[in-house]
Amino acid sequence: MNDATDWQLKPYLQERVRMVEDALDRFLPRATTLPASLHDSMRYSVFAGGKRLRPVLMMAACEAVDGNMEQVLPAACAIEMIHSYSLIHDDLPAMDDDDLRRGKPTNHKVYGEALAILAGDGLLTEAFVLLSNSNLAKGLAAETRSQVIHILAKSAGSLGMVGGQVVDMESEGKEIDLPTLEYIHTHKTGALICAAIECGALIGGASAEQQQALVRYGQAAGLAFQVADDILDIVADQELLGKDVGSDEERGKATYPALIGLAESRGRARELRDLAFAALDSFDGSARPLREIASYIVDRSF
Amino acid sequence: MNDATDWQLKPYLQERVRMVEDALDRFLPRATTLPASLHDSMRYSVFAGGKRLRPVLMMAACEAVDGNMEQVLPAACAIEMIHSYSLIHDDLPAMDDDDLRRGKPTNHKVYGEALAILAGDGLLTEAFVLLSNSNLAKGLAAETRSQVIHILAKSAGSLGMVGGQVVDMESEGKEIDLPTLEYIHTHKTGALICAAIECGALIGGASAEQQQALVRYGQAAGLAFQVADDILDIVADQELLGKDVGSDEERGKATYPALIGLAESRGRARELRDLAFAALDSFDGSARPLREIASYIVDRSF
Repeated sequence: MNDATDWQLKPYLQERVRMVEDALDRFLPRATTLPASLHDSMRYSVFAGGKRLRPVLMMAACEAVDGNMEQVLPAACAIEMIHSYSLIHDDLPAMDDDDLRRGKPTNHKVYGEALAILAGDGLLTEAFVLLSNSNLAKGLAAETRSQVIHILAKSAGSLGMVGGQVVDMESEGKEIDLPTLEYIHTHKTGALICAAIECGALIGGASAEQQQALVRYGQAAGLAFQVADDILDIVADQELLGKDVGSDEERGKATYPALIGLAESRGRARELRDLAFAALDSFDGSARPLREIASYIVDRSF
Repeated sequence: MNDATDWQLKPYLQERVRMVEDALDRFLPRATTLPASLHDSMRYSVFAGGKRLRPVLMMAACEAVDGNMEQVLPAACAIEMIHSYSLIHDDLPAMDDDDLRRGKPTNHKVYGEALAILAGDGLLTEAFVLLSNSNLAKGLAAETRSQVIHILAKSAGSLGMVGGQVVDMESEGKEIDLPTLEYIHTHKTGALICAAIECGALIGGASAEQQQALVRYGQAAGLAFQVADDILDIVADQELLGKDVGSDEERGKATYPALIGLAESRGRARELRDLAFAALDSFDGSARPLREIASYIVDRSF
């Protein structure tokens, strides 16, 4: 199907997003489950929009090795829950102190700071409840389940996403160099994106060679996403991103355009996209979604 | 050994605490690992003292079914990391706003609010890194590993500990009834204590019957611990607890003594201790530590 000339990214993404959101709705406790305020708050942020990039990438990686979509869906939802938790905590007054996220009031603006912290904690923990549920993803070997948990936890933890957020926070208002900026990006955003690809491949039953190639794709695509995001922050209009344009700059956050200029940032994004393409050289049409997503990630910043 | 007439709880606990603290030191990233501020902050709270009740109970449950101590040690450390994270977040200004914990400045007083939130997030996530590390607890079946993760995540999540914290927070300054108080205690503290026992039994290779008996022990001991803690908050001197005496009362938190009186609270604690004993009826001397810990938990409040 992915080889068909009339294959298009937009309907593909819409279909995947629908699958993920339906499954998230099934997997998350109801908004009326006690404590209702907590579950309402958790659901508020999970269903406040978003591109669902990480679950879509995980499913696309699984698809690239002809894996089973039903088996990857719980982990795809878990990674989105981890992503949602990180956004809730990043937005807190003690952190980035953001009032808006995707054009909507942030979690603590609606539910208060305490509940926002706990909703984040709840989502992070429920992600692992989901990942370790042996009634889901039937047929997946327990060993694979455990490996997926290990990869996701490592990428989200103090040597991954949380570590990246710390360095990002500590760099605010300071002049930082390119290696520090790359550290922030590869940890804060890149690690989880790369884990999405790695887990999708693993669940899909990738060979060691396929696995390595997909990790290379994930590393390049993850960084490309962040470079493109930095560029967008400078050039996009408010409506598109749902947050204040140039908000990174205002806050004194280092970005690629600020460090190496807009033109060179675009060059770097293109370079990373081509690296991602190259990693997929040995794959057939089943990797088409991965290729098109890499293009989409970068091209939106042109 | 546990049958010996000269067996004593105090040296047993000291030995177990030493084992857990040595292992925590091995398993946690060094304080110099980047980002150093984050790892320093995570270690500060993990090594700020504490009875290590949850890991000790997990190891004692494993011991009660003649399980292997090396296999239970990673999970024992993981549950202590989860407990530490919950204390860091509970102490935050947006939550209980505590300046002292076990006589030392709380995490956010030392490292600031943002880093305290992230140290909590880091500890919670690293617990799952540890639990899913197949290079540790060698010989443990992947299926068991996955079950342990499921039990711990569920007990710590929105239907367990985090849920209990939400209801506790929402009940502050309100008149609550006994069922609500029991909900708070069984979720906020009891769930993780019970999970400690359940996971210890599982890792130790308990039979279904032993597993059920130990879960009954865990439920009774978990609630007994909280009733005793409520009593201690009223009667203990500041030095003993390292926090303000009567601080629960000041904050308008409901406690057993406040709801049913001191004498009846002590009666309830004794009753729960006896329930915990009864659950261990079919066990031999290997369950002696569990029995003695149940006594110790309750008797310190007399």
